[in-house]
Amino acid sequence: MCRLLFLWLTFWGLTAVAAERPNIVIIYADDLGYGDLGCYGHPTLRTPNLDRMAQEGMRFTEFYSAAEVCTPSRAALLTGRYPVRSGMAHDRYRVLRSQSTGHLPEGEITLAEALQTAGYATGMVGKWHLGVWSNDPMGHPRRHGFDSFFGLPHSNDMDPVAGNPPRANTLAEQKAEWWNSPLYRNEELVERPADQTTLTRRYTEEAQRFIRENRRRPFFLYFAHTFPHTPLFASGAFRGTSQRGLYGDVVAELDWSVGQILETLRREKLDRKTLVVFSSDNGPWLIMNQQGGSAGLLRDGKGSTWEGGMRVPAIVWWPGRIKPGTVPEGIASTLDLFPTSLRLAGVQLPADRMVDGVDLTDLLLKGAPSPRQTMFYYRGTRLYAARSGRWKLHLQTQDGYGQPGPTVPDRPLLFDLATDPSERFDVGADHPEVIAGIQREIEAHRATVTPVESQLESVVAPSEPAKSGASGKP
Amino acid sequence: MCRLLFLWLTFWGLTAVAAERPNIVIIYADDLGYGDLGCYGHPTLRTPNLDRMAQEGMRFTEFYSAAEVCTPSRAALLTGRYPVRSGMAHDRYRVLRSQSTGHLPEGEITLAEALQTAGYATGMVGKWHLGVWSNDPMGHPRRHGFDSFFGLPHSNDMDPVAGNPPRANTLAEQKAEWWNSPLYRNEELVERPADQTTLTRRYTEEAQRFIRENRRRPFFLYFAHTFPHTPLFASGAFRGTSQRGLYGDVVAELDWSVGQILETLRREKLDRKTLVVFSSDNGPWLIMNQQGGSAGLLRDGKGSTWEGGMRVPAIVWWPGRIKPGTVPEGIASTLDLFPTSLRLAGVQLPADRMVDGVDLTDLLLKGAPSPRQTMFYYRGTRLYAARSGRWKLHLQTQDGYGQPGPTVPDRPLLFDLATDPSERFDVGADHPEVIAGIQREIEAHRATVTPVESQLESVVAPSEPAKSGASGKP
Repeated sequence: MCRLLFLWLTFWGLTAVAAERPNIVIIYADDLGYGDLGCYGHPTLRTPNLDRMAQEGMRFTEFYSAAEVCTPSRAALLTGRYPVRSGMAHDRYRVLRSQSTGHLPEGEITLAEALQTAGYATGMVGKWHLGVWSNDPMGHPRRHGFDSFFGLPHSNDMDPVAGNPPRANTLAEQKAEWWNSPLYRNEELVERPADQTTLTRRYTEEAQRFIRENRRRPFFLYFAHTFPHTPLFASGAFRGTSQRGLYGDVVAELDWSVGQILETLRREKLDRKTLVVFSSDNGPWLIMNQQGGSAGLLRDGKGSTWEGGMRVPAIVWWPGRIKPGTVPEGIASTLDLFPTSLRLAGVQLPADRMVDGVDLTDLLLKGAPSPRQTMFYYRGTRLYAARSGRWKLHLQTQDGYGQPGPTVPDRPLLFDLATDPSERFDVGADHPEVIAGIQREIEAHRATVTPVESQLESVVAPSEPAKSGASGKP
Repeated sequence: MCRLLFLWLTFWGLTAVAAERPNIVIIYADDLGYGDLGCYGHPTLRTPNLDRMAQEGMRFTEFYSAAEVCTPSRAALLTGRYPVRSGMAHDRYRVLRSQSTGHLPEGEITLAEALQTAGYATGMVGKWHLGVWSNDPMGHPRRHGFDSFFGLPHSNDMDPVAGNPPRANTLAEQKAEWWNSPLYRNEELVERPADQTTLTRRYTEEAQRFIRENRRRPFFLYFAHTFPHTPLFASGAFRGTSQRGLYGDVVAELDWSVGQILETLRREKLDRKTLVVFSSDNGPWLIMNQQGGSAGLLRDGKGSTWEGGMRVPAIVWWPGRIKPGTVPEGIASTLDLFPTSLRLAGVQLPADRMVDGVDLTDLLLKGAPSPRQTMFYYRGTRLYAARSGRWKLHLQTQDGYGQPGPTVPDRPLLFDLATDPSERFDVGADHPEVIAGIQREIEAHRATVTPVESQLESVVAPSEPAKSGASGKP
């Protein structure tokens, strides 16, 4: 009896500890739109693994990236702060470029740093885009809390080879020699040009290895896919298999990869100890034509502060803790993954700075209403729109890439996103009090924002050699 | 042993008979769009019963109504024939009106007639819209194969009361006294104006009663909802409950109703003997603004031959026979329910006429590829577009209600619906051979179509009394 009790207590103790300090896995797709998964209604994209993940977990329908493009979105994800606070936003240079010297500032605390300090193993696989370490070593993920890194410094179209066809990344027939992306393991350049056709597969193997190697301690894995950002490449096993063409092949491989990660967690008996989040950095890149995705019923896409630019698919999975098949009401954001993960890991939020994320733990584990009431839609450093509850107020609007703008309407536009998710009907004339209320929320928010220098402007001088580290030159 | 064998054989025999002659239930929503269900990606409409039906059954993503408006869509559903063949289409009068004298011709064989002849109990609940029997008794469902009928002769906005506000059916605040719809049980007018707030509930109770009363014989139930066609009404239990507003309340009650039907089948132990099909008559009525639905990522809506006008949600459910959670590739249509149902009921297809539907039995029960290769998009009697495999050719285009048109382009427009479901990229210039092939298919199809007199033009003369039957006057 005593022995049984002891065993039970030990088991309970271990379970309680595991439940207190789960592993955290964030899988981040690049330019995947709200409408691009089977479980979000796409007719010809097939994503059985993500659909199953949604059936076993929680699928959000009002989940936001905190930016409409890549670099600021990732800064927000890892810091829990609007990128305007960290300088990872710029009104002209929207993202870091291959010649950029700026990076996520040392003073920012990333989710990886916070969890590393608390004893987590921290690994990153995939696309970073928060610094180009060949221009400044402080831009490397290992300077921001990750024990290990395997991937690309930035987007896969950022090192085009001279003489590429016009708009080469919109083409369904890609050639490897058009692109010169550098692939790194930690600080070491291991392949250039990276063989992009096998990138998803190799990322996946790397992520699986990280999970297996760290199965006995809590870990944080940030797996940021290079695709479906263009140019699109899929491995031989997926090329030509999807009705949806090359984009579909690439999404099918992404879906396969997610399935492999979940299966690895199951096999290692970590599935009930691991919170897995799948989302995307921003909406679909519509000017890529058939090589771009779909925002479903949402308006516009990447580069825009209409819903299609920033509302993204989001699936959260934690068997035994999250009720299967739930679709919560209310809004949430990538910003919230920082405080939520810290809460689950038992780590205090930094008290010396504004954190914009809210703790979603009770929403995830107890079905509580979302504590998030507002969402601010920045494009660069400018606030374009704000959501409060069901209402969204546009101070100015910007259609996606390649469109003119911004447009500043005579009076702000108001949309009821609950009844009008496609932003078709400006109802501002009927609700002046709602407009006034959101404007007050905007002012309160603005009062918390201190202008900082942007990290996205400075570049290496044409003749200046890189400061140090791997040169990043072919 | 002998007794066991006898029992087994008896059981097997009963099972085999039941499997050979399943009950058929068709649930038809009105103006519900491709994007309007949770399982098709809507962010604020909640449809847990339909989502579960899809998880337990088969969800189509390329399923077509054979018309972009009500009357011809229903004629096609019940006859398996393009409505141009039956005269249930017209280029100006797109649907039957309350003063129409035309109706589904006696010579047409409906699914109800075919199954009635084969010994099925046949019942219809809901909106008919294939004849106004107060103007001509031959327009009644009981003259077209249904043993019983409970519902409205046509759409719920077709008897507006003089003095209604402009565009009254677009309003979220409805008044019962604005509408004077007649509700019938068989040929008897039982309520006018029909209390539309309780219509979905009463339809549902009626459908449940029909199922219970006929549980010992094969039956065919055609349950055609009045909603979410406008004006929108929901019962007290649903009014004000949905984030999506009145439209969401109405869809929630529709979803509840579907759940009740499936639950009744389970309770009566008929679920494994019954094929249930859920679909919609056409795309969302976009000019109803927030009172209209969404086509999701598809272009346009009701009244249009763009995909949003005719591609509709479709879920097929038959526990034990249809593999749960499947999403088939390939196209299918409401046209196909006629031959598929007849095959399952062991009834020969009529040999004296062209039937446009194809038999989906092997697709449903064995996962075989869809035998349907083409879909012709009629608007009235004119062919606007044709789909062959992944390709859709537009000879002319028509945006939805209230938009100018039709537009006849200089050369036909070609879209690859597999990679471009939103019909954004005309790729005709790259594929002249595909255009030529579809044009040959169009010519072959046209050769099978004999012009017939339209049933949608004739109306009662202003001073002429109705021929007979219930007067339909308040």
